[in-house]
Amino acid sequence: MGAPADHQSRLPRISDVRVTPIAFRDPPLLNVAGVHEPFALRSILEVEAEDGTIGLGESYGDTATLAALAAVAPQLVGLSPWDLAGLINAATLSITGSPATGAPYPAVADKTLAVTIGAFEVAMLDLQARLLGLPLHALLGGAVRERVPFAAYLFYKFAHHRDDPGYPADPWGEALSDADLVAQAQRMVRAYGFGSLKLKAGVFPPEREIATLHALRHAFPDHPLRIDPNGGWSLSTAKRLLPQLEGVVEYLEDPVPTLADMGQLAAETTLPLATNMVTVAFGHLPETLRLGAVQVVLSDHHYWGGLRATQRLADLARVFGLKIAMHSNSHLGISLAAMTHVAATIPNLDYACDTHYPWQEDEVIAEGRLAFAHGTLAPPPGPGLGVTLDRTALAALHQTYLTCGIRVRDDAKEMRKYDPSWSSARPRF
Amino acid sequence: MGAPADHQSRLPRISDVRVTPIAFRDPPLLNVAGVHEPFALRSILEVEAEDGTIGLGESYGDTATLAALAAVAPQLVGLSPWDLAGLINAATLSITGSPATGAPYPAVADKTLAVTIGAFEVAMLDLQARLLGLPLHALLGGAVRERVPFAAYLFYKFAHHRDDPGYPADPWGEALSDADLVAQAQRMVRAYGFGSLKLKAGVFPPEREIATLHALRHAFPDHPLRIDPNGGWSLSTAKRLLPQLEGVVEYLEDPVPTLADMGQLAAETTLPLATNMVTVAFGHLPETLRLGAVQVVLSDHHYWGGLRATQRLADLARVFGLKIAMHSNSHLGISLAAMTHVAATIPNLDYACDTHYPWQEDEVIAEGRLAFAHGTLAPPPGPGLGVTLDRTALAALHQTYLTCGIRVRDDAKEMRKYDPSWSSARPRF
Repeated sequence: MGAPADHQSRLPRISDVRVTPIAFRDPPLLNVAGVHEPFALRSILEVEAEDGTIGLGESYGDTATLAALAAVAPQLVGLSPWDLAGLINAATLSITGSPATGAPYPAVADKTLAVTIGAFEVAMLDLQARLLGLPLHALLGGAVRERVPFAAYLFYKFAHHRDDPGYPADPWGEALSDADLVAQAQRMVRAYGFGSLKLKAGVFPPEREIATLHALRHAFPDHPLRIDPNGGWSLSTAKRLLPQLEGVVEYLEDPVPTLADMGQLAAETTLPLATNMVTVAFGHLPETLRLGAVQVVLSDHHYWGGLRATQRLADLARVFGLKIAMHSNSHLGISLAAMTHVAATIPNLDYACDTHYPWQEDEVIAEGRLAFAHGTLAPPPGPGLGVTLDRTALAALHQTYLTCGIRVRDDAKEMRKYDPSWSSARPRF
Repeated sequence: MGAPADHQSRLPRISDVRVTPIAFRDPPLLNVAGVHEPFALRSILEVEAEDGTIGLGESYGDTATLAALAAVAPQLVGLSPWDLAGLINAATLSITGSPATGAPYPAVADKTLAVTIGAFEVAMLDLQARLLGLPLHALLGGAVRERVPFAAYLFYKFAHHRDDPGYPADPWGEALSDADLVAQAQRMVRAYGFGSLKLKAGVFPPEREIATLHALRHAFPDHPLRIDPNGGWSLSTAKRLLPQLEGVVEYLEDPVPTLADMGQLAAETTLPLATNMVTVAFGHLPETLRLGAVQVVLSDHHYWGGLRATQRLADLARVFGLKIAMHSNSHLGISLAAMTHVAATIPNLDYACDTHYPWQEDEVIAEGRLAFAHGTLAPPPGPGLGVTLDRTALAALHQTYLTCGIRVRDDAKEMRKYDPSWSSARPRF
């Protein structure tokens, strides 16, 4: 394989690629794996063209991702910002040791490869769009909606981190009871206008969490509800709970830990099952469909291979009758802007997108915190992603990365500070 | 739905859209439906930007397609050349009477809609690429091969059209015997270097056509062979013929007329079945896969919805273990350039592409006839498609359209000039 001979283009080539690990403050949010550590890690990508235009990206900040990004970054220098095939070739060779063999997006679950391609693809698309003076959604084929709906992401949480992280406690306080969660939801809906509510579950015995759901339903009679135990329930537990969830939630996210379990559970209910855990790569789709295991795929450009891959996933979902929603990890504004631009172009975005964004207080973009209105966000205006780097903030968050001591997210290790016997083995219940 | 507020882009908008029907000379090629008429119809699309840059497209030229293209064309004026969502919205509303409802590409077999979107999408992508000074394959994500392989497309044929078409007979002469077809193949391989041979079948009783295949195998021991009866065989005939085809052809194209028949035939053989007749829209894929009816999809940007749709089809095929080849109708250089650019970007192009191009003598592009070498074609160099309109030729071929009297291709009507009892009912054998 090889690209055709070079052409006469007026477009500048990539002259520099920078990957900066950062860490930002994160509240003690509870989940099936344990509790969030005081700092969350991300990587900030800059792909710079010869004329000084910079495309931005944001991805994971764990050691393995950073190593993969660092290995690929220098190989992009000299490429056209349009040469996504060149990116895929470089990433595939670096990460798998073999040339790309026919897959524009990783077919099987080589997550590091998909993450690496996706991270740089966003930055290269952003660079393309900035060079053209087009918003990213326009480059991606055009928006089909002006604003993208997001859901409130409700968490059981502690008031404070176990060890003093060197910064004041978050403003949300403890949330362990039904009343706490309703108050959290009310505050979040008041502040951001969210029209859907998602409860992160798998923390307490499921009946207690379902009681929280019912309290939310009472306080918010018209808000669609979701619950996500992150595979924390056994198949028999989930089967037992179905009657308490049918008619209450719009979908049930990752109740059980395996695709086979999801298939068996789906056979027992008309409640749509959603996932960001068992169907996380294109190669998982044939078996997912064969088993009828999933009705809603929570797409995520960070690990599906980028924004074009996210569009292709949505297209494929439409063809095969799957619904599309959107998954989130702890993230800052570059990721949120990318999510919003691509979501604006997807006609069959069937549910409000997840986002952890309200839980974050730090930011790395010069525009400051992006502002939800009525639970929705418009793609930031201007060329590309519509956001630019705040270099002072980037330097400070990089300094935090250097000093925070965290190199791989480990919610279980953090939880063992509270409970030395903690295990994050699943299913928990 | 609605697009976000307009942005400040330096890019020109679409200022004019022209659709010109043309007719060009076509030899009397035989197939299951009858025989090619003396003229084949196409439409030539020009999408012009405010700065005078023109994007080109080529599609079908029948009355229904022309009406759909004419209805949509004026609605593109004022759009950004990047606004493919705007194209899809305009085309969907014009053709179906309803707004676009979530399908970036038509999910079901509304062929006119997919054709219309695809026709203008190519021209808009060509316009984008020309505005950037990028070859079209680069805009599409980058080429993964320098040259695209094509197959020799062999036809049984008459020496002359029944009625004098007003132009000299084609140089290929009559081809009705095994020896004629071997001579045709030898001449075509000598002239173009094709490395694969496809026999258009469904014309004579199948044993006679398989004898031709065996004669071709004898003359070309190393060339992969294909046969395409266009659904002309009954299921029982096809089952009977399987042992004579297994190990002889690389795939068997549309032996039987329905998807259900294809599924039943596929269950009896390991010979891959290919189609451009029963799986021709994204909405057909779930049932195709459920039945295991097709192993090779012959993609065609003209009716799958454009070049991005062709890439998505290839991606989806990879995910679900289908192979990809490429279908052709009678066409000129704009279509050939588009096929070649997109094929260069598809990693999993598993077989040489079909093309009728060697059967055509007319051309509408200023570059003249595109030249195969060693059976392959490189994407024409330069920005966009790399081909430009020969306006004198366009005017002459449009004049031919006006005077030729053909408005919808009808191979059966033409065949009835030779055999008044001719019926193109399928299966024939």
